[in-house]
Amino acid sequence: MIHPIPPGTRDVLPDEMRELRALSERLRGAFEAAGYAEVWTPALEYEQVLRAGDERAAGAGYRLFDEHGEVLALRSDMTIPIARVVAGRMGDSEPPLRLCYFAHAYREARAAGELREFLQGGVELVGVPGAEGDAEVVALILDALDEAGLSRHRVGIGDAGLYRSLLASLAVPDELHQPLLERLSRRDLAGLARDVAELGLPRGDRELLAALPELRGGAEVLERAGEAVEELRALHAELERRGAADRVIYDLGLVRELGYYTGAVFEVYDPAVGFALGGGGRYDELIGRFGRPLPACGIALDVQRVHIAQAAEEGLG
Amino acid sequence: MIHPIPPGTRDVLPDEMRELRALSERLRGAFEAAGYAEVWTPALEYEQVLRAGDERAAGAGYRLFDEHGEVLALRSDMTIPIARVVAGRMGDSEPPLRLCYFAHAYREARAAGELREFLQGGVELVGVPGAEGDAEVVALILDALDEAGLSRHRVGIGDAGLYRSLLASLAVPDELHQPLLERLSRRDLAGLARDVAELGLPRGDRELLAALPELRGGAEVLERAGEAVEELRALHAELERRGAADRVIYDLGLVRELGYYTGAVFEVYDPAVGFALGGGGRYDELIGRFGRPLPACGIALDVQRVHIAQAAEEGLG
Repeated sequence: MIHPIPPGTRDVLPDEMRELRALSERLRGAFEAAGYAEVWTPALEYEQVLRAGDERAAGAGYRLFDEHGEVLALRSDMTIPIARVVAGRMGDSEPPLRLCYFAHAYREARAAGELREFLQGGVELVGVPGAEGDAEVVALILDALDEAGLSRHRVGIGDAGLYRSLLASLAVPDELHQPLLERLSRRDLAGLARDVAELGLPRGDRELLAALPELRGGAEVLERAGEAVEELRALHAELERRGAADRVIYDLGLVRELGYYTGAVFEVYDPAVGFALGGGGRYDELIGRFGRPLPACGIALDVQRVHIAQAAEEGLG
Repeated sequence: MIHPIPPGTRDVLPDEMRELRALSERLRGAFEAAGYAEVWTPALEYEQVLRAGDERAAGAGYRLFDEHGEVLALRSDMTIPIARVVAGRMGDSEPPLRLCYFAHAYREARAAGELREFLQGGVELVGVPGAEGDAEVVALILDALDEAGLSRHRVGIGDAGLYRSLLASLAVPDELHQPLLERLSRRDLAGLARDVAELGLPRGDRELLAALPELRGGAEVLERAGEAVEELRALHAELERRGAADRVIYDLGLVRELGYYTGAVFEVYDPAVGFALGGGGRYDELIGRFGRPLPACGIALDVQRVHIAQAAEEGLG
């Protein structure tokens, strides 16, 4: 007798569960030691409410009708629900707010074998703008992964608006921005180069559009990119102040898929595994869409992926 | 701007969340100290698979279609998914198996204000039949609630088959059993008495059917009920052996709503609050429906209700 479970979901048996629980507790301990207080929001939300946060996030996962015909959706991340809470029930709390969460999120799998239910552990820093807030969150995630026993992890840092600004400044027609950004978010640099070649731009501009996403490395990348990365340079200074600057990688081609990011974007890596352990970024307009304009940024870790990276690091000795 | 959440769901803010997390960790610590290992199963299951466990459980909550038109349901408890796992991926594990979980379950609210998403912390003991298994689980739950700081809690104990057997032995027509059992499960003793009066049974039989559900108290209840409660007397002896007999209440009218219970059934009370903190029972046929016949029993606590009882006990001084 076979009794299947839905594709992209998993049963977690005792040995793995013990390790996942210990890992979550270590991450939570690090978040709480830094003053981040845990919150919980319902797994089901009105789709219309999620849409207020981000059009694309709302359609990304499982949807159903309630008994009144309203469309409900399983949360696809915790950032939008927490933005709702910060503007709503926590509307009287004085910023800055430091919040964390451990909860499953649900998304459409885009590739075979990808999980559709995954455990996220993350932080949101609300009310601290720009480089200061970004650096606090990046340094906290690096520390929390130290606590979790990783040693080779890095945070990749890009800028959500950089490529978009470049497209606009080179007068690339608006309707071509989204397809090009999607190539970039999938890291399809060959496809991007082909598309760019067809734009009919002067050679220098074409080269700039193809070269920017290849800029990846330490602080020297920021030197080469000039004025466009002023904000990332400020972030670098803050990270140096916190002693975390040597564990980040600037990546000017980094674009996160969610539409609510407005500034720095982050991806968490470990060289022991070939996938990101998490990500996030600055979203200064999201909470305002729920009625309380406040700058914010956050990072979510995929706890099961961090667990795999733990094991892989141990395997590498 | 109001951004509602679905009825029967809640946002949990930092102060409450800190207490709920501490409570969960204390319960989990007690479960693990007793050898119960934590597992996780997906929030979404194929409805057809849940139905294999219990017809009624499958329709009790939120349902949706996946991209292939299959019906998925949000789990309405963890007992059926764990039965699936014990028969499936854990099929080679030698019984007894001691498992625990902390996960949200989803059900249709039957009354205004009832939660539709609620956090359950519970245990399943697989492969230990009858009184011995029942007593272990009841004593563990009493201990775990001690650890959680409660002091006045009790476990109510009934027998899922008792009233059904009595109806059968008095030749009450089969089609009348379910409506009478539903009255009983809702504790509608007045309605039950009315229905019983209309059965056209001899007076002695009518009195027996009306009187049995009123039998509630200590071991003396078991003396009065005679041979029909042989199994509960064996359970009482086991509870005495474990020093837990003075903290249970025998309640011969106790009927749990789920259809998979086959023996003793449990409800957890605290006199400080007017609702059950949890419940469970023996389900000796459920795991067999997934292909691995094994006796089992378990109890789930509603963590948020235990938290309310904690506060209420403190309030009572």
